[in-house]
Amino acid sequence: MAAFRFEILKTDAATGARLGRCRTAHGVFQTPAFMPVGTQGTVKALTPEDLREMGAEIILSNTYHLYLRPGHERIKGLGGLHRFMHWDYPLLTDSGGFQVFSLNSLVKVSEEGVQFQSHLDGSRHEITPEKAVKVQEALGADIIMCLDECTPYPAGHEEAERSLELTLNWSRRCKDSHHREDQALFGIVQGGMYPDLRKRCVEALGEMGFDGYALGGLSVGESKEMMLGVVSRAAPLLPSGQPRYLMGVGTPWDIARAVLHGVDMFDCVLPTRNARNGMLFTKNGRLVIKNARYADDENPVEPGCSCYTCRHYSRAYLRHLYLAEEILAMRLNTIHNLHFYMTFMGEVRQAIAEERLKDWIKTCYAQGTSEEEKDSGQPDPWESTFPKKLAGNRNSASGRAAPVK
Amino acid sequence: MAAFRFEILKTDAATGARLGRCRTAHGVFQTPAFMPVGTQGTVKALTPEDLREMGAEIILSNTYHLYLRPGHERIKGLGGLHRFMHWDYPLLTDSGGFQVFSLNSLVKVSEEGVQFQSHLDGSRHEITPEKAVKVQEALGADIIMCLDECTPYPAGHEEAERSLELTLNWSRRCKDSHHREDQALFGIVQGGMYPDLRKRCVEALGEMGFDGYALGGLSVGESKEMMLGVVSRAAPLLPSGQPRYLMGVGTPWDIARAVLHGVDMFDCVLPTRNARNGMLFTKNGRLVIKNARYADDENPVEPGCSCYTCRHYSRAYLRHLYLAEEILAMRLNTIHNLHFYMTFMGEVRQAIAEERLKDWIKTCYAQGTSEEEKDSGQPDPWESTFPKKLAGNRNSASGRAAPVK
Repeated sequence: MAAFRFEILKTDAATGARLGRCRTAHGVFQTPAFMPVGTQGTVKALTPEDLREMGAEIILSNTYHLYLRPGHERIKGLGGLHRFMHWDYPLLTDSGGFQVFSLNSLVKVSEEGVQFQSHLDGSRHEITPEKAVKVQEALGADIIMCLDECTPYPAGHEEAERSLELTLNWSRRCKDSHHREDQALFGIVQGGMYPDLRKRCVEALGEMGFDGYALGGLSVGESKEMMLGVVSRAAPLLPSGQPRYLMGVGTPWDIARAVLHGVDMFDCVLPTRNARNGMLFTKNGRLVIKNARYADDENPVEPGCSCYTCRHYSRAYLRHLYLAEEILAMRLNTIHNLHFYMTFMGEVRQAIAEERLKDWIKTCYAQGTSEEEKDSGQPDPWESTFPKKLAGNRNSASGRAAPVK
Repeated sequence: MAAFRFEILKTDAATGARLGRCRTAHGVFQTPAFMPVGTQGTVKALTPEDLREMGAEIILSNTYHLYLRPGHERIKGLGGLHRFMHWDYPLLTDSGGFQVFSLNSLVKVSEEGVQFQSHLDGSRHEITPEKAVKVQEALGADIIMCLDECTPYPAGHEEAERSLELTLNWSRRCKDSHHREDQALFGIVQGGMYPDLRKRCVEALGEMGFDGYALGGLSVGESKEMMLGVVSRAAPLLPSGQPRYLMGVGTPWDIARAVLHGVDMFDCVLPTRNARNGMLFTKNGRLVIKNARYADDENPVEPGCSCYTCRHYSRAYLRHLYLAEEILAMRLNTIHNLHFYMTFMGEVRQAIAEERLKDWIKTCYAQGTSEEEKDSGQPDPWESTFPKKLAGNRNSASGRAAPVK
């Protein structure tokens, strides 16, 4: 895999945290990295220039959505996804499997693959491991993912084991059918919440040999402690020379804790989706912009923040835009939240470089709590509180791309 | 009025067209000028930087909307509308009267003023000429407008005359109550479609003496020929030393024809609203981006266009964003359409400067017609075709700010 190279610059002695650089066919990204989610070939409300300005080096797009609309062959004909969306930097696509399961009620899984109906028009489709690779080759991302079955939560040991075997079989077929040398292929570790199954999966995928390894089937309704428990056991078992990617996670706090266990890559819709719902990230926790207390507040969202939004606009203006349902509200809020994440990741990397990650994590989110969070007893000041009604549903509980509309 | 100064650089000998410069408390704008509409304190989907990049020098915001939400006193407390919306350049506010009439079914007009209920929450309000000025003084725009009654169409001579007298009375009261020396105050000419009434109004307003004069009560359902007929008779009667503003007009073709009669300023929601509906302006007419013929089209909206959208994105991508209802579609389409208008106005000014306006107008829109327009027999290639069902309604037929949502 000539184009793809992962280099570990430093491993934190006190923890398993790694500082790295990943070279792809479209340039380099630093790790630990957070990937903004561009579900339908656009990070909602932003241009690529907005993303670069805030320091985004790699973004993610969803194969399921692009496969259905506008279609992978069409994008290939237009020069590939990078060119289509005007993003000439590192790009990762998922396999589409997660959305097949989460956006469709009538899904038929077999050894061969998975049959489903389009959430857009009801048309019937089948995705096999070979097809997932073929579609992602047509899109042309720098990093592509194996088709996996996201084991539901809760699942008994037997069910999780059966699901795991299917994922291993599919992973092998993905590897065998993948031919583009300018793309890296990552395998996905399943195994539910069972340490023995996770270990078995790690070993089996490691034997097959992938360019990177993802932890899947997490953030699907289990508790945060359970999720981090699995990460803490599984991540250190992964081959140390390749990047480790925790899919669909999470709040800055989740990310920091996973970094301690040696995770290198993250993606989550939390900063972008929360932005569109008026929930803004600050060092003091969440700030709900529609609250009446901001009606006359001349301060930026976060004093001292260097993002475009905080440099030019008051909380009062952002509140007005949000209440008036103005499109600019989406954009300004998204800029702030992603800038917050990018700054956070930069500070994580800096702390690893200076061998003070553990101390830094103790203070990074302990600078007081926002007005909203006082007395809530919430241990994670950035925890998302919505959509509560969907808690337990794998689609919403996870930070992965939600249904369109 | 120390801060406000209008200077005519050139008057076209063959027509009444004028090339000018207008100095305000927040800088200069060139005329003929097109003002993008920022209804609720934001030109929908754009930042001020986007607007400056495409050459916008003055924008308009709607007093009615800002008065109801977030409130003029609140904006004043936050440093005024310029600071609130991060637009440090020339700014015009309308009086609010037009929206009072067009967004409310239960309006009570008296000599004193107009009573209405908020379209947001049903709360009761009254706007008098004095209050319209007071609200606009609080907002702090560089150019503010007198409260007028927009004479409906059709209206009999007697009705139009009665309405005109009310407008004249209100205009006098606006002038008497206006005290901010850093703001220019424009009067509005009414009189329906009646030349004698328009003439009388022009003379009466001219005697009162305003910093500029607007032609109101047009583009309210009458034919385009009738509208231009009124403009061609009324505009030349206006005092020649002050700017002339045709409210709520129109397509580039309408604008070019009004410039020939000596109009200096324009505003219209057409480029921004059409953009959000996927209707794009090109030299060849309108381009409806959702059309299937663009699904695989690698070309920009308009080859040769220097706007951000055309420099980086294909029709195929814009079609995808539009069909996927992505926020970025609104932004990219709006950038293109307003860039088209700004470029058009720049070419109009250049043509006046070079004494070739009449020739230029003959060719500016005659470069063939777009695929959509072929065989339509439409004389104005940029004519808006929607919302047809509302044709005749003063709110939609006009290019002025439509109801929110």
